[in-house]
Amino acid sequence: MKNITVAGGGVLGSQIAFQTAFCGFDVKIWLRSEESIGRTKPKLERLYNIYKTTLNEAKKELGTGKVFPRGLITDSSKINESDIDRLLAAVDKAYNEIKLTTSLEEACKDADLIIESMAENPEAKVAFYKSLDPHLEAKTIVATNSSSMVPSQFREYLSRPQQYLAIHFANNIWISNTAEIMGHSTTSKDAYEAVAKFASDIKMIPLRLKKEQPGYILNSMLIPFLNAGQMLLANEVADPATIDLTWRLGTGSPYGPFQILDIVGLNTALNIVSNNPLSKDPTTVQGKIKAILEKYIAEGKTGVNSGEGFYKYN
Amino acid sequence: MKNITVAGGGVLGSQIAFQTAFCGFDVKIWLRSEESIGRTKPKLERLYNIYKTTLNEAKKELGTGKVFPRGLITDSSKINESDIDRLLAAVDKAYNEIKLTTSLEEACKDADLIIESMAENPEAKVAFYKSLDPHLEAKTIVATNSSSMVPSQFREYLSRPQQYLAIHFANNIWISNTAEIMGHSTTSKDAYEAVAKFASDIKMIPLRLKKEQPGYILNSMLIPFLNAGQMLLANEVADPATIDLTWRLGTGSPYGPFQILDIVGLNTALNIVSNNPLSKDPTTVQGKIKAILEKYIAEGKTGVNSGEGFYKYN
Repeated sequence: MKNITVAGGGVLGSQIAFQTAFCGFDVKIWLRSEESIGRTKPKLERLYNIYKTTLNEAKKELGTGKVFPRGLITDSSKINESDIDRLLAAVDKAYNEIKLTTSLEEACKDADLIIESMAENPEAKVAFYKSLDPHLEAKTIVATNSSSMVPSQFREYLSRPQQYLAIHFANNIWISNTAEIMGHSTTSKDAYEAVAKFASDIKMIPLRLKKEQPGYILNSMLIPFLNAGQMLLANEVADPATIDLTWRLGTGSPYGPFQILDIVGLNTALNIVSNNPLSKDPTTVQGKIKAILEKYIAEGKTGVNSGEGFYKYN
Repeated sequence: MKNITVAGGGVLGSQIAFQTAFCGFDVKIWLRSEESIGRTKPKLERLYNIYKTTLNEAKKELGTGKVFPRGLITDSSKINESDIDRLLAAVDKAYNEIKLTTSLEEACKDADLIIESMAENPEAKVAFYKSLDPHLEAKTIVATNSSSMVPSQFREYLSRPQQYLAIHFANNIWISNTAEIMGHSTTSKDAYEAVAKFASDIKMIPLRLKKEQPGYILNSMLIPFLNAGQMLLANEVADPATIDLTWRLGTGSPYGPFQILDIVGLNTALNIVSNNPLSKDPTTVQGKIKAILEKYIAEGKTGVNSGEGFYKYN
C-alpha cells in the first residue's frame, strides 16, 4: 500500500490522515465541499502542532524512562535524538504533502485504500458509497471507521464487497494507538490482512475481530460496564466517587465508570442510553440514567472537555 | 468497639479474624465443631507467616519507594523501622491471643460486633442466626460477610434487626483492603457508622452503600463486564488474549476479563453463569459460556490457583 485516501475531515478523519501521512504514505483527504476544506485545515494545523510539540518535549526527556505516545514513538526505550529528528521531519512532510480535494475522481485515482470516516449517519453513508463505487479501481480496498455501524449494512452498495471491511480507531490516535479490524462475512482474507498490516505500518496495534460485532471489542465491554455503574447511581446505591473508588481498588484500574463517562462526554452517554426504548419510561433504570445525564448536561457539565462533569477539572 | 467475634474460620473468616486481632482488637472465632478448630488453626498459622514475611521484607525495602500491602502498612512513605517492629509484635500478639471456641455463649459474651462469615448457604445461615439470637447482648451488632446474599434475607431471625447489616471483604484482606458496608432498610445509622468506623480501624477502606444491592458495588459492575467479555469469546468474535489486550489498551486497566476470570477462578465463573436459567440451553450465549468453562475445568484449567486457566502461569 502506498496511496491512502481518507473520506471525511472530522475529528477522526483528520487524525487518521495525519497519522498515515506521518508514517510515510501518500495521503489525500476527500471532502464534500470547499467549506469542509476550510474546516479541515485548522484541524491538520492543530495536529501538526501537537506532533511537533510532543516530539520536541520527548527529545528533552530522552533517557528519563518516560513512555512517549506510542503512535509517535513505538518503543520509548530505544529512541535517540536523531530518530526524533527524523520523526520531526516526517511531521513537516506530512503537513506539507497531505492533499485535500473535493473531487471523488481524484480521491479514488490509484488509491490502495480508502478509509471512510464520515458522520455517523447511515443515509449519508449509503449516498457516499453509491457515489464512490463507480470511481473505485479494481485494487482499491474500502474500510469504514464507523463506531456504531457494521460493514454488512453497506456492502451491497459496493461492487466489490469482498474488499470492504471496518478499521476502527480511537480518538487521539497518536496516544490511543489501537485499530480494531473487522470484516463482514464475505470480506476476503487478503483485504483483511492488508488492512491489518496497514494498521501496523501506521504504528497502530491491530486488534483482530474474527466476525462482525456491533461495538467491536472495546465498546461491547465498555457499554455494559458503564451501564452497570450508572445503574448503581440511578438506583441511589452509592455516589459516583464511591463507585469509582470501588472499581479502582477492586480491579487496579486507573479510572472508574464516572471518570470514563467524563472522558467520553455526557452527551455521548446520553445518546447511548437514549437508544434504549426503556429510557422513555422515567421509572426504569434507563429512564433514571437519562434524567441524571440530562440534568448534568443542562447545567453545562458535559465532561472533561467542558471543565466539569461528574467531577470538576481545571 | 473492643471485642470482636468472627463466626466461621474459612478462607475469609480466618483473614478477618487475623486482621482484626493484628489491629489490636480482642478476637474470638466461633466454630461449629472441634474438627472446624482443627481446620482453622493451620489457616491462622499461614496468615501469621504471611504477615511476618511481608513485614520483614518491607523492613529491607524501606525507602525504595515500594508500596507495601495497605492492610498491613497504611502509608508506605511514612513508615520507619521501629514502626515495623511494632507491627511485627502485633502479629505475634494476634497469633497468640485469638481465641477459638465452639461455645456460642462464650462467643457472644461481651461481644461488640459479631461478623458472620459462614458458608454461602441460606439454610445454614438461618439456622445459625436462630441459634445465635438468644445469646446476643443488647449492645451487640451483627454483620454478615456474605457475597451473594443480602441482610434483609435474614433480619427476621434476629431480635434487633436494626443492629444487623453487611460488611463485605475481598480475599487477601491485607492486600485488597476494602470493606463494602451495606445496611438493609431498617439498619440504624449508629450501627452502620460503628461498622464503617470499625472497618477503618482494621485498616480497611470503607465503601459505603446507601441501600441494599445484591452483589454490592464491585460485583454489580464486575459481573456484567465479565459476562460481556465471555460473550465475545462464546460468539467467536475474538480470542481471550485479543479481548484482554483491547480492554487494557482501551482503558489503561492492568487486567482484561479473562485475566480477572483466571484470578477469580473458573469454578466461580461457572457458578455465576449457571445461576442464569438461559445457560441450560446450549444455543444461548450463556449456554456457550457454560460449555467453554466446563471444558477448561474438565482439563484441570481452573485459573491462576491451578497454574492454568485461560493463560498458563508458573
